[in-house]
Amino acid sequence: MADTAAGPVDLVILGGGSGGYAAALRAAELGLRVVLIEKDKLGGTCLHRGCIPTKALLHAAEVADTVADSAAFGVHATLGGIDPAGVARYRDSVVDGLYKGLTGLVHSRGIEVVAGAGQVVSPTAVAVGARLIEGRHLLLATGSAPRTLPGLEIDHRTVIDSDDALALGQVPASVVVLGGGAIGCEFASVWRSFGAEVTIVEALPHLVPAEDEASSKLLERAFGRRGISLRLGVPFADAKTTDRGVTVVLEDGATIDAELLLVAVGRGPVSAGLGLERIGVTIDRGHVVVDPQLRTNLPTVSALGDLRPGPQLAHVAFAEGILVAERLAGLDPVPVDYVNVPRVTYSHPEVASVGLTVAAARKRFGEVDTATYHLAGNGKARILRSSGAVTVVSAQDGPVLGVHMVGDRVGELIAEAQLITNWEAYPTDVAQLIHPHPTLSEALGEAHLALAGKPLHVHS
Amino acid sequence: MADTAAGPVDLVILGGGSGGYAAALRAAELGLRVVLIEKDKLGGTCLHRGCIPTKALLHAAEVADTVADSAAFGVHATLGGIDPAGVARYRDSVVDGLYKGLTGLVHSRGIEVVAGAGQVVSPTAVAVGARLIEGRHLLLATGSAPRTLPGLEIDHRTVIDSDDALALGQVPASVVVLGGGAIGCEFASVWRSFGAEVTIVEALPHLVPAEDEASSKLLERAFGRRGISLRLGVPFADAKTTDRGVTVVLEDGATIDAELLLVAVGRGPVSAGLGLERIGVTIDRGHVVVDPQLRTNLPTVSALGDLRPGPQLAHVAFAEGILVAERLAGLDPVPVDYVNVPRVTYSHPEVASVGLTVAAARKRFGEVDTATYHLAGNGKARILRSSGAVTVVSAQDGPVLGVHMVGDRVGELIAEAQLITNWEAYPTDVAQLIHPHPTLSEALGEAHLALAGKPLHVHS
Repeated sequence: MADTAAGPVDLVILGGGSGGYAAALRAAELGLRVVLIEKDKLGGTCLHRGCIPTKALLHAAEVADTVADSAAFGVHATLGGIDPAGVARYRDSVVDGLYKGLTGLVHSRGIEVVAGAGQVVSPTAVAVGARLIEGRHLLLATGSAPRTLPGLEIDHRTVIDSDDALALGQVPASVVVLGGGAIGCEFASVWRSFGAEVTIVEALPHLVPAEDEASSKLLERAFGRRGISLRLGVPFADAKTTDRGVTVVLEDGATIDAELLLVAVGRGPVSAGLGLERIGVTIDRGHVVVDPQLRTNLPTVSALGDLRPGPQLAHVAFAEGILVAERLAGLDPVPVDYVNVPRVTYSHPEVASVGLTVAAARKRFGEVDTATYHLAGNGKARILRSSGAVTVVSAQDGPVLGVHMVGDRVGELIAEAQLITNWEAYPTDVAQLIHPHPTLSEALGEAHLALAGKPLHVHS
Repeated sequence: MADTAAGPVDLVILGGGSGGYAAALRAAELGLRVVLIEKDKLGGTCLHRGCIPTKALLHAAEVADTVADSAAFGVHATLGGIDPAGVARYRDSVVDGLYKGLTGLVHSRGIEVVAGAGQVVSPTAVAVGARLIEGRHLLLATGSAPRTLPGLEIDHRTVIDSDDALALGQVPASVVVLGGGAIGCEFASVWRSFGAEVTIVEALPHLVPAEDEASSKLLERAFGRRGISLRLGVPFADAKTTDRGVTVVLEDGATIDAELLLVAVGRGPVSAGLGLERIGVTIDRGHVVVDPQLRTNLPTVSALGDLRPGPQLAHVAFAEGILVAERLAGLDPVPVDYVNVPRVTYSHPEVASVGLTVAAARKRFGEVDTATYHLAGNGKARILRSSGAVTVVSAQDGPVLGVHMVGDRVGELIAEAQLITNWEAYPTDVAQLIHPHPTLSEALGEAHLALAGKPLHVHS
């Protein structure tokens, strides 16, 4: 247990999500005294309202799709429908099991967890109710929350955010998803698998617009085949609730009626109301500004995760938590290379990437080399009846700069790809190595073989 | 099209399986004139009687298991049984699609394919029927075939081999699988998913005995939970066919009655009857002996794949085919590092590994470092309701020597692991990089974090 004797502890962490608890665990492991303040539940958005429950829903959706398609594999089965209470029980059992594990882990490492909403009162102190917790260092890790568009009010009934969507007790008959990013695409995918009529509205010309354009197009085609309607490149204008749900109006005048409107236009940092202005920490459009070592402008205050500008990813926050703990313990941690962090949209099919898109690589390096391997040539993809592709982009006769994949289960393949880009491997370095047959991972090997000038299973 | 003018071609390949066709494709790409001789179908065992059709069966089995377990995920479904004809149609559609692709690819590269059984008549010539095909070089790539134990006759009805098992028109009510290696475990897994009573008999003390002992034990426990009976460490004594099937007798006197006995005691090289003795190529217990560049004792003859001693894996044969083609084209290919080739048993759960087992690493290096991460702590594994573990072994303060995994879908993760062992990465090299959350691949990252002395989600 933490020594709760009087006097400042080494580290006070505000927020027990992925970044906060990772920092707490690593700091405790390195011998620091840590207090972790959490107003809700340890694990934060990722465990309770984000990564984990949404991926549980996506797996339930995969189960439903598998049942519906079972005849194609020679298995007689009848889909009797979705049991929303059963899905919720499954989802909660996954969350609860991980929550129990995390709570036990934090306890076993001697970290003091304080329940409540913290108020930063000085660069070295946080008040929780009547209690003042002083630390040699503060780590701000309050994360993010769903945001909306100006003038579009979330009523949490008909116009909902992703928190509401997760808590929904039934499958909507029809839904408009406003926003074609990862969160929007994942909910669209789940609801479509569960039988809903789904329309995605995205103001930019493509789904998952931060991804390589080829990946976006493959996802759009796959979603189209699944019967998900897409309205791309058309801004949202208005939403009116009606007796039967909501009428969404687009800027081109088109209207879409649905039972529900999910607003998935992104998440904003949770920086207001914490007392941050009181201590003079630099904030830019709600984000706490940090350097590559996650230091704010105040020497005793650090910040990480969705609160700082940059990627909103739990695995990045984990790494940042470890980094802050190691720095405070006097180690010399390597800054996170944000470009080479893997990104996954866990829809059906999945989209996964690491490094630069082809467009970004061209912009930075001029001419680049690319190779695309279509999953139609991959044995395991045919076994799964999945389609998609792997695209690898490298500098001319240089290292691999980016890997982009679309297909079921490709999220697991990007782990290898991130080693390739982080280690600045050349296509030939990967091409000479052996991927197991028959796996999806062979597609990554084949793309590198092609880029190294010796395509094997590629029609030239 | 190949130039079929008189005179020797550059390369005559005997056998159109994974190794043979990979050599043909790469040689043609490098400008060599190639004749490929195949007595059955391009693609060989792997495509028609091995990797691909068995993995299709395993996926149909996954579909059946998913349907049977669907209530646990909140999906109402009823398993109406397995439709053997439907499974066969699905399996054949996968094989046929890949076969069509391969045939087109070989054709497009200008490779002449000769249908028929070749007879080696000189170190530079093969006869196919009345036709003599001469080449500056011969590549022997005739692969392997199922073998049996002395005195145990395969009648292809009640006592069957893996070829028969694949062609089976029904799901047996009960089956004894003789041999607990990859092939035996895969068929046992499929049949159990399809509802059969399955017993595996293995003379060695463990299933998948070439794997790390901890992996074997995890598989045994998982198979036990699935209701697969195991008789380990007991040699087979006899099998008697009866009215209702077969009675298998073990050396300890125990008997097991079943409808079928699958003999899965390994595969032997196909070297007899090819005329090899005529040309004086060195053969050891049926295997053609080669050096690391896959040269036989005869300067114009190479051999690869299951025909030489060493691992019987399609992905190794692919790599060997590329190597031989490149050597003959005057390039200087790197020999295959057989220790760092990934190995996967695609059962439910899967077993995957690369590099040295913990025991082999200890034998070679004395003290070693190991870390095991249990999938119970991994979010995606909980979502899949899978269990298992990842074990990483490294030299003391040295590079990673081996990675061993058990769990559903871990076959896709070993691709990253093979980069780690082939590139002689240190645990710290991997630990500082970021795996996407929530994926199974995080378990590999966590095991490296633990080995690097900074376990994150591991109870210490």
